[in-house]
Amino acid sequence: MKDYIVKDPWQIIEDQFRPEYNEISESIFSIGNGRMGQRANFEEDYSGKSLSGSYVAGVYYPDKTRVGWWKNGYPEYFAKVINSTNWIGLHLTVNGILLDLAQVTVTNFERRLDMKAGVLHRTVGITMPDGTQLAITSRRLYSVAESQSAALSYQIRVVQGKAHILLESGLDGDISNRDSNYDEKFWDEVARSANEEYISLQLKTKKTGFDVHTHVTQQLVHDGQSIAVGQVIDREKYVAQQYEFTLESGQEASLSKYAVILTSENHPLADLSAHAETLLQSVADKGFEKLIKEQAAGWAKIWQDSDIQIEGDVAAQQAIRFNIFQLYQTYTGEDDRLNIGPKGFTGEKYGGVTYWDTEAYCIPFYMATTKPEIARNLLIYRYKHLQKAIENAAKLGFKDGAALYPMVTINGEECHNEWEITFEEIHRNGAIAFAIYNYVRYTGDVSYLQEYGLEVLLGIARFWAQRVNWSEAKQQYVMLGVTGPNEYENNVNNNWYTNRIAAWCLQYTSEVIDQLASSNPDRLQHILQTTSFATAEKEKWQHIVANMYYPEDAERGIYLQQDGFLDKELIPVSELPASERPLNQKWSWDRILRSCYIKQADVLQGLYFLEDRYDLDTIRRNYDFYEPMTVHESSLSPCVHAIIAAKLGKEDKAYEFYLRTSRLDLDDYNNDTEDGLHITSMAGTWMTIVEGFAGMRIRDGKVHFQPILPSQWDSYSFRITFRGADLQVKVDQEGVHVTNSGKQDVQVVLWDTQYVMLSNGTLDVPYVVTSKA
Amino acid sequence: MKDYIVKDPWQIIEDQFRPEYNEISESIFSIGNGRMGQRANFEEDYSGKSLSGSYVAGVYYPDKTRVGWWKNGYPEYFAKVINSTNWIGLHLTVNGILLDLAQVTVTNFERRLDMKAGVLHRTVGITMPDGTQLAITSRRLYSVAESQSAALSYQIRVVQGKAHILLESGLDGDISNRDSNYDEKFWDEVARSANEEYISLQLKTKKTGFDVHTHVTQQLVHDGQSIAVGQVIDREKYVAQQYEFTLESGQEASLSKYAVILTSENHPLADLSAHAETLLQSVADKGFEKLIKEQAAGWAKIWQDSDIQIEGDVAAQQAIRFNIFQLYQTYTGEDDRLNIGPKGFTGEKYGGVTYWDTEAYCIPFYMATTKPEIARNLLIYRYKHLQKAIENAAKLGFKDGAALYPMVTINGEECHNEWEITFEEIHRNGAIAFAIYNYVRYTGDVSYLQEYGLEVLLGIARFWAQRVNWSEAKQQYVMLGVTGPNEYENNVNNNWYTNRIAAWCLQYTSEVIDQLASSNPDRLQHILQTTSFATAEKEKWQHIVANMYYPEDAERGIYLQQDGFLDKELIPVSELPASERPLNQKWSWDRILRSCYIKQADVLQGLYFLEDRYDLDTIRRNYDFYEPMTVHESSLSPCVHAIIAAKLGKEDKAYEFYLRTSRLDLDDYNNDTEDGLHITSMAGTWMTIVEGFAGMRIRDGKVHFQPILPSQWDSYSFRITFRGADLQVKVDQEGVHVTNSGKQDVQVVLWDTQYVMLSNGTLDVPYVVTSKA
Repeated sequence: MKDYIVKDPWQIIEDQFRPEYNEISESIFSIGNGRMGQRANFEEDYSGKSLSGSYVAGVYYPDKTRVGWWKNGYPEYFAKVINSTNWIGLHLTVNGILLDLAQVTVTNFERRLDMKAGVLHRTVGITMPDGTQLAITSRRLYSVAESQSAALSYQIRVVQGKAHILLESGLDGDISNRDSNYDEKFWDEVARSANEEYISLQLKTKKTGFDVHTHVTQQLVHDGQSIAVGQVIDREKYVAQQYEFTLESGQEASLSKYAVILTSENHPLADLSAHAETLLQSVADKGFEKLIKEQAAGWAKIWQDSDIQIEGDVAAQQAIRFNIFQLYQTYTGEDDRLNIGPKGFTGEKYGGVTYWDTEAYCIPFYMATTKPEIARNLLIYRYKHLQKAIENAAKLGFKDGAALYPMVTINGEECHNEWEITFEEIHRNGAIAFAIYNYVRYTGDVSYLQEYGLEVLLGIARFWAQRVNWSEAKQQYVMLGVTGPNEYENNVNNNWYTNRIAAWCLQYTSEVIDQLASSNPDRLQHILQTTSFATAEKEKWQHIVANMYYPEDAERGIYLQQDGFLDKELIPVSELPASERPLNQKWSWDRILRSCYIKQADVLQGLYFLEDRYDLDTIRRNYDFYEPMTVHESSLSPCVHAIIAAKLGKEDKAYEFYLRTSRLDLDDYNNDTEDGLHITSMAGTWMTIVEGFAGMRIRDGKVHFQPILPSQWDSYSFRITFRGADLQVKVDQEGVHVTNSGKQDVQVVLWDTQYVMLSNGTLDVPYVVTSKA
Repeated sequence: MKDYIVKDPWQIIEDQFRPEYNEISESIFSIGNGRMGQRANFEEDYSGKSLSGSYVAGVYYPDKTRVGWWKNGYPEYFAKVINSTNWIGLHLTVNGILLDLAQVTVTNFERRLDMKAGVLHRTVGITMPDGTQLAITSRRLYSVAESQSAALSYQIRVVQGKAHILLESGLDGDISNRDSNYDEKFWDEVARSANEEYISLQLKTKKTGFDVHTHVTQQLVHDGQSIAVGQVIDREKYVAQQYEFTLESGQEASLSKYAVILTSENHPLADLSAHAETLLQSVADKGFEKLIKEQAAGWAKIWQDSDIQIEGDVAAQQAIRFNIFQLYQTYTGEDDRLNIGPKGFTGEKYGGVTYWDTEAYCIPFYMATTKPEIARNLLIYRYKHLQKAIENAAKLGFKDGAALYPMVTINGEECHNEWEITFEEIHRNGAIAFAIYNYVRYTGDVSYLQEYGLEVLLGIARFWAQRVNWSEAKQQYVMLGVTGPNEYENNVNNNWYTNRIAAWCLQYTSEVIDQLASSNPDRLQHILQTTSFATAEKEKWQHIVANMYYPEDAERGIYLQQDGFLDKELIPVSELPASERPLNQKWSWDRILRSCYIKQADVLQGLYFLEDRYDLDTIRRNYDFYEPMTVHESSLSPCVHAIIAAKLGKEDKAYEFYLRTSRLDLDDYNNDTEDGLHITSMAGTWMTIVEGFAGMRIRDGKVHFQPILPSQWDSYSFRITFRGADLQVKVDQEGVHVTNSGKQDVQVVLWDTQYVMLSNGTLDVPYVVTSKA
């Protein structure tokens, strides 16, 4: 754990130059706009620790799979969202010496991410080896107003001495991925252009053939005067403009650099360059300061809908805004072909591809903070991949339309290649089904089921029905050889969560069929015919639901994570020496596997999803048993614990888990922020407040709250959109205050008392003492 | 399964040109002499399917590990015995056309491995595109008399037409491994030399720095006259001599090529070239025909000690000789730094490195067919690696001198990188301990225990004592997260075999301590002191032995392969469609794992090792339960089944398994012979006859036999050396006939009746009817 980020309600601040943490800060200070983004790399040359990264959503490369021991069924490639043209880079030579922050004296340094305005600032004071002192400030942004554009302002001031400066600023397409499996480069150059006015670089990805055109125009102003380009550099995959000038002590020069980045995914290839030129012109014409204003306005609109205010706890306030900010930097819902990569535009690991994180963690956030079409599009994304999921299941020996969604995908095909995950972490299918249920529950949009949902559910149900088998020994259905959400167990039998979600899927699919049988029998008939559905299938499902085996310990009154769990040595995490944590960096894999330690909520994940089927005592017993053995080395773990702890009235624990999930990256809890931010778990952070502290649930078409207020806070407030209502919820020491600024009336249940919130109505309700269980 | 090898008692014959099977034949017709060897690649250019391979024992390269998802504890490299200089290759140009067997008309073809003489023959009839007809014959050998030398005789005869011939024969060091992880080449050239008399190539392996010098001299004779070298070719990593001559119809020319291959492992580097020149001179001076004679004499000596004769069944006779031949081609015991690679010198897969195969399968063969020092050296090989085994265990979190021997090694360090094998297939430790017991049982050499054995046993016992844990739920010791010999299960709990062998190790180590306490207390004290042994350790071991949990099914009266085995669908292999076999090529890994199918004997392996602790009914019940679910996709499986089937009186099954193990490669049962031969399982084939059909066991220092004769055979006979006796055993329809040609008298037990066999005594005993259980 680290603690170097300065706390501030609207800003993320690093106030000293910390080269040892540079890759962590590059992740934390990442910027993006849902279409593209980048790590907070320095503009200048830097020979210290750094992971260069600029990414364009959806532009991927199928990197040839690397495995030690090939197993039948492994995919041929892993899709990677790839590092693309570096448009911010520049080379600054001062009195003949190339500026490299790792090689000069840094006298002061600040990196500051203004989340309110969506701008990254950096200021640095430098003493060059020849004694010249410089002050450099840079600002940059990825525009939320025009998501194909970005801009940089870079200012050099001479504080002492005299500086003869050579500034070369350009576009570098000779980039690579650090995680390239075979040290391949993924881009070919198609064309480039460079003159005094303008530079551009047209690259195409190998194999996948995505064209990405980056066009830049820039101006250097010194003493109020534009300085002309001195020389143009034009070589393979690199174009740049050079400026040569001298600054006396106290003088400054300022570079404004405008970039547009267009891809063949969004425009016909033939128009790409013309389109880029026009767009670039309009961006540059605005000038940097106007772009800054537009950016602030754009972000103001996002914040208006999604901000959470916490009073009395700056660290908590900063953290929730950081989480929301990064979520909307990663995914805005503007483009329904995209999805939410676990690391967004902040690193290479997990390749910017789609995991079950989207369904299990992100959909609730987007459902509540923006228009419902966004969550619907995320569901349709999986609907579009149904055929591929059926093919994926067939590769593993399943048949008759059984669908297994990939663990990792960008186009519906499986990318992951580790048998214990790829083939066995099949609970993902359950989360994809649950998201459909969750969406319909939240929005009331039952039309989704007949239009798209049922077909997906059918494929998933068929998978589960084939994946279980009848145990003669148990006289029940069992599910062998799975990996649950807790990936610190592999190839276990009867993972409780997986058995439970599988049975739930079979049950829910049956129910949806029954519902459609009365609401839209023609459509149902059509779906059942086109999917060759036989009534016997549903009977089989019911038999499985009725006879599924669930491991449990009757004595303790808990569900067992899997068969044999009680053979382990059950030693709480608190007795592990700190020097052995995180386990995944200190212990060998076999030791982790045979230990009792839990990477992320597993039984608790199931109790979270299906909590209305379990009484509070059952939930408490399981929480009390498993929580002490959980190491939370998955980013997705603390949020679920926080929500359950809040429900159980364990406020201190809930608060502790809130900090852990919300400041996971800011404080580098798991010693891995340098790889990139944990974007998808940030939606879990949002849930800890809204579902955890505020206790929001949707039941029978009504929104329920059961709020608690952490003792560290004076108040918190958030906004959700729900079936046309627009609820601003504030929880303070008096109780809860709800305002409906939407157009629809809505039923709100506060501590089990039902209210009707009229459009523009308000409601103030004090705490109910019994609510704290 | 394939059936193209012509059956013959002493020869392996391929009588047609089968390009589609060429890589299989290249494996089958491999030759070697324990120090080096090669696949049966053609001398000429060949553009068809082929895996080039010439190998020198002990010369390896640490190829950088390739994994998809790195796990803590994985080794940095996989040691590979690497393809080295090709000394047989030549380019033959006839009337301007390069001869490539894939591009010409082959009119007749024979590849023939003369196992009696240790010579590979090939004859081929060719019609060139211009109509010229050639008959080519080649013979080659790796000398068993001088193991650093090899020779080739290559004869070209013109059958029709007139041939202007350019023959270029040389040394090619520009070779690579097909299984190179990152397409690296492993060799650097140090020097080369080429003139009219002589060519040589000096290569050094990258990283490991092994020097391998290959020197060649050759003569071309035409019409009784030597033809002078026309031109010398000399470029990086390639040297050759060219001959140019014309053959009229009916004429022939003959090339004799002599090679010596010396490494810095066997000679001081400074002397290597001088030594090579002297050696090459002596080899070449003999001439090819004399080398052939020496080779036949060398092999006659090996056969005298190790041959098994089977009368009445050519396929069975050919097969056992093929197995014995390949074993002695791979390992002679001459060099105690070497061990037995699972594929010997016949392919790349498994890298020529050491597995538990040596201890579990090979040691019995070498103990019985050659002098006891050889088996002892194989044990000492592991003793020398003890410190590395302790370091290996420490990497996985074990302490206080616990030793985990690697799954795969060449120098004591672990090479394998698949967590479920590397970290979990820990039963290998048991086989290494069992081999010590087995060696002492066979040879009576108790001095081994105090000199070397106990230290290894202590390290292994300490590992097991830490690897088990106390289960509060079971109130017994359990062992979680292991992979048994049946690698079609991973990360299981309480694998019966592993639990059993672990407890046996603890028990045996305790017994050895007790024995030494009376026989050599000083030495014991010294060992216990240097290993910081505490008496409490032994008490703990006893507690574990007394309280180990063994999964079983009381109803069926069987041991369970692991916890939960009875939850599987138990469908016999006989109900699987042939199109789905072998499973490892047709099914995804998860499907294999959750099925009941067994790759190799697992419970049965334990019952085989420890059979004197189990009654026949127990063994039968387990055999009857597991055998129908066993797919034998490990080469190590059928032999154990054959031995147990023979013991149980299931003669037909025993014979079936004998054929399967002995002809595994000849008939390509598992569709993988092209990768190389299954050398170590060939020792298992030997065991199926000696321990299976002849029922040999060692008990209380006496050798027992309980022979049966497969109905397909008239007789079989073999020879074993046992404690100074030299027993020739023949089993025929009358009974068993034993001759002791050794210097020692020995006690022999035939069907439970004890006899004393005097030196030079003979014994003829008819069958005992009750022996067939």
